[in-house]
Amino acid sequence: MQQFSQELQAFEFWVAMAGTVAFAVTAVLAVVPRGIDLFGACVMGLITAIGGGTIRDLVLGVPVFWSSDLSYIWVALGASVFAYYAQALVTSKHVYAIMLYLDGLAVAMFAIQAAYKVIGLDFGVPLAPILLGVVTAIGGGLMRDVLAGNQTLLMKKELYAVPVTLGTVIYVAALPFFPGSEIAVSIVCALLIFGIRAAAIHWKLSVPDWAIARPKQDD
Amino acid sequence: MQQFSQELQAFEFWVAMAGTVAFAVTAVLAVVPRGIDLFGACVMGLITAIGGGTIRDLVLGVPVFWSSDLSYIWVALGASVFAYYAQALVTSKHVYAIMLYLDGLAVAMFAIQAAYKVIGLDFGVPLAPILLGVVTAIGGGLMRDVLAGNQTLLMKKELYAVPVTLGTVIYVAALPFFPGSEIAVSIVCALLIFGIRAAAIHWKLSVPDWAIARPKQDD
Amino acid sequence: MQQFSQELQAFEFWVAMAGTVAFAVTAVLAVVPRGIDLFGACVMGLITAIGGGTIRDLVLGVPVFWSSDLSYIWVALGASVFAYYAQALVTSKHVYAIMLYLDGLAVAMFAIQAAYKVIGLDFGVPLAPILLGVVTAIGGGLMRDVLAGNQTLLMKKELYAVPVTLGTVIYVAALPFFPGSEIAVSIVCALLIFGIRAAAIHWKLSVPDWAIARPKQDD
Repeated sequence: MQQFSQELQAFEFWVAMAGTVAFAVTAVLAVVPRGIDLFGACVMGLITAIGGGTIRDLVLGVPVFWSSDLSYIWVALGASVFAYYAQALVTSKHVYAIMLYLDGLAVAMFAIQAAYKVIGLDFGVPLAPILLGVVTAIGGGLMRDVLAGNQTLLMKKELYAVPVTLGTVIYVAALPFFPGSEIAVSIVCALLIFGIRAAAIHWKLSVPDWAIARPKQDD
Repeated sequence: MQQFSQELQAFEFWVAMAGTVAFAVTAVLAVVPRGIDLFGACVMGLITAIGGGTIRDLVLGVPVFWSSDLSYIWVALGASVFAYYAQALVTSKHVYAIMLYLDGLAVAMFAIQAAYKVIGLDFGVPLAPILLGVVTAIGGGLMRDVLAGNQTLLMKKELYAVPVTLGTVIYVAALPFFPGSEIAVSIVCALLIFGIRAAAIHWKLSVPDWAIARPKQDD
Repeated sequence: MQQFSQELQAFEFWVAMAGTVAFAVTAVLAVVPRGIDLFGACVMGLITAIGGGTIRDLVLGVPVFWSSDLSYIWVALGASVFAYYAQALVTSKHVYAIMLYLDGLAVAMFAIQAAYKVIGLDFGVPLAPILLGVVTAIGGGLMRDVLAGNQTLLMKKELYAVPVTLGTVIYVAALPFFPGSEIAVSIVCALLIFGIRAAAIHWKLSVPDWAIARPKQDD
């Protein structure tokens, strides 16, 4: 499989860093109303940013991605501290909207990147790339919600994990038909995920009621 | 240690598949009343079916079992989708009872299989085979309950994990005394676990009150 | 890096065993009021005692520490059973205080030991030793709280994880400046953590209100 070009790698790196910031910031904002201290906020930001990819690498049996590039951790910690002290800023309407869209872009890119990595290792194709793509994108957020005692996104109607899964399925299905065009297919599928997610954010779309098993019966 | 015969392997495979179906179906039925969507139901079914064995393989440092045989994932996903759309069927008295007993059989078999695998790797004998046997059997269900926000079975009085542990302890203790009869010992211990579990299902047995530390003080 | 001397290794082993006892006992006492049975209590004691170090070793890609020395598991199980049946004893004022301080000593020592191990593997220095030191110290307790449905310590004001992190940061920062004195630096930093934690236990110190993002808004 053709290597991603160097320019694309640089582009990928910066999108990954922006995504790491968005993951950490949205995580801190999700737990701050519960009265967390700075330490807890950093743990939550860090787990959300690197948790999913860590599970992926453990399952793949490869070194965890952040052990050879600590940028992910520095950036996640820095963004967490910033979000903790600059809540007034990051919760302002415009900045928060930017964070939500960046989070959507990060989710899209991390899922596709992960699926590409898993396919490159010829690991459990075609199902494992999809599973681990989704785990990479949403695993950190699930760990955060469990540790914070929040309801996980699996139990919510928000359109978050569904577009990720859909886009990753299409990616893994389409890739063999476009040999030599891995970059283009990757970008198209990431944009597809981001597009649906952005639409869900903008129009506040949620999983339609008829697709929910039963009305929520929370006590 | 003598290899399990080929017939037994085929038998094991089909029991494992039936167990995977039972794990996924009971998982979906456990979360559906909370108003989950199809995607969430599939995640829950899948995690319940393969979560425990995945933890076991990570701790053992061997490739996760489903990476070389995707049947486990296909079957778990298929059973989850089926259970989601055919709730009226799978919650009918007879089918649900079959699922509960199949789940009991799966728990028994997965625990014994796992203990056997760990002993074969000479990994932390005699304690690790017991621990990892129990983890394989109940780990996926614990992950499901945590992600769904349900009380985990560790906090319930249901006789579920106790027979698994008891049978696995007996298995690991007995195995060295019956060289060449691993198959027989495996079957006897799996049936022992299943027998106790089936009795617990049939007579609705629970951990007796005198064995509980204190009366539950949930707020 | 100079090897710890044999005497220190023996000392470390006994502190680790005492810490394992303290982890298991405090874990059992934390879940017993919820009406748990003996099996659940043992699982909770065991997970608290070995959970953090297990995550560390999985991330490092090295064999889990308890696979080559089952003492950790025997001691954790023994202490859990003892704590379950001797609650009147272990909840007596003096014994419980001893357990709390032992827990503080264990947290301090496990964090420093883990950071030392990670540095020795030249794994993600300087951030990974700090992260994995903290994970080793508090990871098991987090897993216990999640499985028991208790609020995790990340959401509490108790001064528990903060001194661990502080001491581990100082340790990793100071170590390169004292070549050949790893033992002394290790002891000093572990005592620093233990000192702050002991002060927090004795004077019931908590994270000051001004360092908390917002007042707790629990339902």
